[in-house]
Amino acid sequence: MAVCSIPKATLGRIPLYIQYLKKLPEENGEMISATKIARGLLLGEVQVRKDLALISGCGRPKIGYERTKLMQALEKRLGCNDITNAVLVGAGKLGRALLNYAGFEDFGIRILAGFDCDENALRTGENKPVLSIKDLEEYCRDNNVKIGIITVGQGSAPEVCDMLVSCGVKAIWNFAPCTLKVPHDVLLKQENLALSLAHLNSQMKIKK
Amino acid sequence: MAVCSIPKATLGRIPLYIQYLKKLPEENGEMISATKIARGLLLGEVQVRKDLALISGCGRPKIGYERTKLMQALEKRLGCNDITNAVLVGAGKLGRALLNYAGFEDFGIRILAGFDCDENALRTGENKPVLSIKDLEEYCRDNNVKIGIITVGQGSAPEVCDMLVSCGVKAIWNFAPCTLKVPHDVLLKQENLALSLAHLNSQMKIKK
Repeated sequence: MAVCSIPKATLGRIPLYIQYLKKLPEENGEMISATKIARGLLLGEVQVRKDLALISGCGRPKIGYERTKLMQALEKRLGCNDITNAVLVGAGKLGRALLNYAGFEDFGIRILAGFDCDENALRTGENKPVLSIKDLEEYCRDNNVKIGIITVGQGSAPEVCDMLVSCGVKAIWNFAPCTLKVPHDVLLKQENLALSLAHLNSQMKIKK
Repeated sequence: MAVCSIPKATLGRIPLYIQYLKKLPEENGEMISATKIARGLLLGEVQVRKDLALISGCGRPKIGYERTKLMQALEKRLGCNDITNAVLVGAGKLGRALLNYAGFEDFGIRILAGFDCDENALRTGENKPVLSIKDLEEYCRDNNVKIGIITVGQGSAPEVCDMLVSCGVKAIWNFAPCTLKVPHDVLLKQENLALSLAHLNSQMKIKK
């Protein structure tokens, strides 16, 4: 699949477009204009045109987009037809919050299970089990896991990161407040929730 | 206090600079060069110079920065001397994870308490209590709360947002996956964890 990079903001609007198109009544017909989509979603028309051009090419002048094709293009871009499997290590409060969050599937990502070294945290038989860290490697291999999410503390994060890399994940999403090292062929995204809040705080102080 | 906007990335490095300066042995003397800071933190020298210029002005050529003054400037910019109080509404897994996360204080933000409408979720007598939503307004007024964090579900988020605004908060950090409306003098930051992961996923697919 040839995929080129699209801006994060555009990516974030794809689920909105899909939801909007899905909810449109059948009797509205097969064609839909960017103007109508923009109005329906309270977005700027230029922005909608740019987004859709990136994802599915331009609509036909005065006619618009074919709804079915547009929806297929949007879903393809989001990877809905090509689910990526993820696991999470560290089943504390944040870990369990992420494990139970349903919103990832809208973006074509499925967190299959959590892992922990604390025997008391383990839960099997549930929709999203929490398994022993000892089973991580076998599980990742058996389930074609491509993304590892780190929600352990700072102290254990480097070790967990190395484990995930050796289990074959190709991307790591790290919530621990520390710098991790990964091989060149593995992507690393550092999440810093404190920083997001700090940025909001500094904007608020400027506005005051 | 006159504050001008600095990039989020620079803001994110301020705690690193402060930590580094704090850990420096006394015998190293009062002056410190940008080169040395850059080496110590594995950052680019140009980046360090730019960051520090934004925060505290330029160092003296061949001599560097006065450590104490630099640290004061960094801490002032981060708002460490001017703590902002925050509360959180929705004491589910994510809410409690944020409530217990110590990292916010490094950025001059203190989450004082959580609020919930579920009687079973309430906890008093703890360091960070979970209180009844009925007490939100009085608590915000008594504690000069400026930031409200929303970790309830999508259904309750608009109502909680209105409550926080009427309690006088000046910034809202929303984790619920929905669009909120706030008055012009209130800042709104929409957090979308699924989107962060989706972006990582799309980068990974491009790289493949």
